[in-house]
Amino acid sequence: MPLNDTSVSPAQKKGRLLLIPNTLDLGCTGEPGESPLPDLREVLPLGALQAAAGLRYWVAENAKTTRAFLKRVAEVQALLTPIQEQDIQVLPRPPKGGQKKPGSGQDQAVRALLAPALAGHDVGLISEAGLPAVADPGSAVVLAAHRAGIEVVPFAGPSSLVLALAASGLHGQSFAFVGYLPVEASQRVQRIRDLELLSRKSHQTQLVIETPYRNAALWQALVQHLQLDTLLSVSCGLTLADGWSRTATVEQWRKRPLNLPDKVPAVFSWLAS
Amino acid sequence: MPLNDTSVSPAQKKGRLLLIPNTLDLGCTGEPGESPLPDLREVLPLGALQAAAGLRYWVAENAKTTRAFLKRVAEVQALLTPIQEQDIQVLPRPPKGGQKKPGSGQDQAVRALLAPALAGHDVGLISEAGLPAVADPGSAVVLAAHRAGIEVVPFAGPSSLVLALAASGLHGQSFAFVGYLPVEASQRVQRIRDLELLSRKSHQTQLVIETPYRNAALWQALVQHLQLDTLLSVSCGLTLADGWSRTATVEQWRKRPLNLPDKVPAVFSWLAS
Repeated sequence: MPLNDTSVSPAQKKGRLLLIPNTLDLGCTGEPGESPLPDLREVLPLGALQAAAGLRYWVAENAKTTRAFLKRVAEVQALLTPIQEQDIQVLPRPPKGGQKKPGSGQDQAVRALLAPALAGHDVGLISEAGLPAVADPGSAVVLAAHRAGIEVVPFAGPSSLVLALAASGLHGQSFAFVGYLPVEASQRVQRIRDLELLSRKSHQTQLVIETPYRNAALWQALVQHLQLDTLLSVSCGLTLADGWSRTATVEQWRKRPLNLPDKVPAVFSWLAS
Repeated sequence: MPLNDTSVSPAQKKGRLLLIPNTLDLGCTGEPGESPLPDLREVLPLGALQAAAGLRYWVAENAKTTRAFLKRVAEVQALLTPIQEQDIQVLPRPPKGGQKKPGSGQDQAVRALLAPALAGHDVGLISEAGLPAVADPGSAVVLAAHRAGIEVVPFAGPSSLVLALAASGLHGQSFAFVGYLPVEASQRVQRIRDLELLSRKSHQTQLVIETPYRNAALWQALVQHLQLDTLLSVSCGLTLADGWSRTATVEQWRKRPLNLPDKVPAVFSWLAS
């Protein structure tokens, strides 16, 4: 361990779990024909960049993309530890159904990721896009940190869900993110109808995401199965130079077919009246 | 109009509605004894700061706090238009019950706010804290923009709701923000129980906010009325130097009374198992 590793706290003192936001350009390469990738400073505040640059220990969904992120950080903020010396542990894949009933093996694996924090080092948690532990499996690590008495510090950064909500113009004083819809057609239709009913009864905006290559299929199902007067919104490529957000009634959308790109992240939301 | 106002687009071209994030330190003065206010660059990305600095027309909840925000922006980014020449229009107070059934007078008042955009100028929408149109009445303006064919561009910035969710360690793949709970005691208890049931049935994290001076009363009600094994989290002063987030079971909270400050914004969340 280098002597100048300032992330080492005095003896016995635990490190913290720092929640480091990522950009929203997952899967975008910035190559010709695509939107250029934004400079990290345009979308991440300095607080997050400085925190990221000072870390050595990470918990991530993917080590390769985390190193790519650190490379982008290094372009705008000197790293305390060179990328090749960074310690990146990968989150175990959660059991199907999320963290509902994690097995004890899963619990133990998650706790083990926090060993550096128990030894006095700050640990960064990072997601593939946006805020960690929002719409991704990272929350198990955060909960384990609370249980172990490790301080959790979230850093401000972009979240596609609330950016899409803001840009939708749909009710922002009550909203729900419900993850992915079923892929199987009849189950998907049923879920769309259930969520529309919930939206109407609770006056609650419903938000979902989809794997980009299925964006067009999800859009088609929403336009086809939601009621005519339901407001339907889509945000595509948020924070990218050619990103856009549009909202209209389902009736209007039926008259105005929309082609969604199959490689750009999108967020879908609706509000029934 | 100054000749160098670059927000003026060519004839006929509409301006855009830019969603400018604010900080999360609403109501905090940074005076001795309080947390110092963060440098704007620490919590807002450069993209948002540059967009804010280039605007002249605003729609805001409050003109005075918007000028205070612009003064903070000016400390880190030169404003294109001096503060005293900025055109800040204030959002009409929404009718009780939110935007559910806005009267036509309300609709007209909201549309009028977009006149500068129809005349070719970019208009900034800003909230008292965090992202505009999330947990505030700004969504009516955004929806009016979509209806008028005005492009809506959200800028990345902090949202206390998703930061609190990330920091809670509660399920982040399904969550709902339900605004404020009723103030009246028996209605509040009923709502807490309903939302706990919903959380259990849907495995969905529930988030609420409260006016800071009622933080302690809400906390007491949650600890008293949620089930013992429900996970309950509170984030206080997010992005402030002395902000913190903690999560434990209700059973643990009952043994560990917590004093919540009465002037610092907090976000509450829970997940029933």
